[in-house]
Amino acid sequence: MKNRQFTPLEQDILQQIMLARRDVRGNRFLNTPIAQTDIGKILTAASWAPSVGYSQPWEFVIVNDQERKQQVIDSFNRVNSTAKNQFSTEKQRVYAQLKLEGIQEAPVNIAVFYRPSKLPVLGQSSMLETGRYSVVCAIQNMWLYARAMNIGLGWVSILEPAEMKSIFDAPDDAEFIAYLCLGYVNEFLEQPELEQLNWETRKPIKDSIFFESYS
Amino acid sequence: MKNRQFTPLEQDILQQIMLARRDVRGNRFLNTPIAQTDIGKILTAASWAPSVGYSQPWEFVIVNDQERKQQVIDSFNRVNSTAKNQFSTEKQRVYAQLKLEGIQEAPVNIAVFYRPSKLPVLGQSSMLETGRYSVVCAIQNMWLYARAMNIGLGWVSILEPAEMKSIFDAPDDAEFIAYLCLGYVNEFLEQPELEQLNWETRKPIKDSIFFESYS
Repeated sequence: MKNRQFTPLEQDILQQIMLARRDVRGNRFLNTPIAQTDIGKILTAASWAPSVGYSQPWEFVIVNDQERKQQVIDSFNRVNSTAKNQFSTEKQRVYAQLKLEGIQEAPVNIAVFYRPSKLPVLGQSSMLETGRYSVVCAIQNMWLYARAMNIGLGWVSILEPAEMKSIFDAPDDAEFIAYLCLGYVNEFLEQPELEQLNWETRKPIKDSIFFESYS
Repeated sequence: MKNRQFTPLEQDILQQIMLARRDVRGNRFLNTPIAQTDIGKILTAASWAPSVGYSQPWEFVIVNDQERKQQVIDSFNRVNSTAKNQFSTEKQRVYAQLKLEGIQEAPVNIAVFYRPSKLPVLGQSSMLETGRYSVVCAIQNMWLYARAMNIGLGWVSILEPAEMKSIFDAPDDAEFIAYLCLGYVNEFLEQPELEQLNWETRKPIKDSIFFESYS
């Protein structure tokens, strides 16, 4: 692997995987089971992520149990019922029609936690949050790798972190980062659903770029 | 792109890119310039990342100016001089020999900020931190895409966020997330440098996996 030089064709394949990756919700998931070995491959891709001071501070709880899934759905419903009130009347109408999670429909759920190191971590002294960011890099690796296996992944964030820690008996020092739903899909949408529904528009990248400074 | 089905060979290429990605520091960078169009491609890969409520809350400041780079190095040196004191005497000896950034050596630096939306964002009501996490997903896309272009990237976190905001005249509501150094390299190491130096060991992924709950 040392000094492996990639070709433009290989770069193009990565581009296609990135462009075809979608946030998948319950209206797309099939109940086709995912093989244990395939779940293992996706978690192994997480372990290839960069982490601050090589701390590898990610922990994953694989969820299949119906009762526990129902507790997560209850948490989602509590948060979601108030979340929609922050939008305009028009957006609330769209919001009510959106399927925003696939907890029940996805055959596999994964709760992702950040477990801070008990020892000092190189590179984390002035920016403690880089520990959490390492876990997010691992999630993005999983998302891309799952897509390359033609498996959909949806990130559910309409949840109460304290409730998630309680549902999964997480230790005091663990922090809830994300709840992921994984499964095969009937369709990967061509555009992000929120773009397709005109909820948000794609920003040209040039609008996010500054040179030398903001001023 | 709709419903694009990837093959095992394409999945393997993604795996090779993920495995060959490294955190690159100043002792590896070459001063070969990176073409503007190639920097543009890496930033475009950032824009393909997932973001909470499709908010795309990332902002990038491209840095070439020597004076500004020097201000970042000064910030690094201030933080680094105290950071090393937290380690054991033995580790401090290794630490002193580590080159932990490539600010001067890398031909291009990018300061990455999170710019919260002024309007409510779908999916962000109970977990505000998902805005920052979206920016981190964009960084991981950049890191992988740069590697597929045989360009190295190093993430410098030994910095004071408030100083970074000041150096780049960032608006009050912008949050500093990461400082990235990009350049061609003399070598992509076979193993992460901190693994090679026995600073940390690779954790078997099975040690990070729980089933149904932590208990």
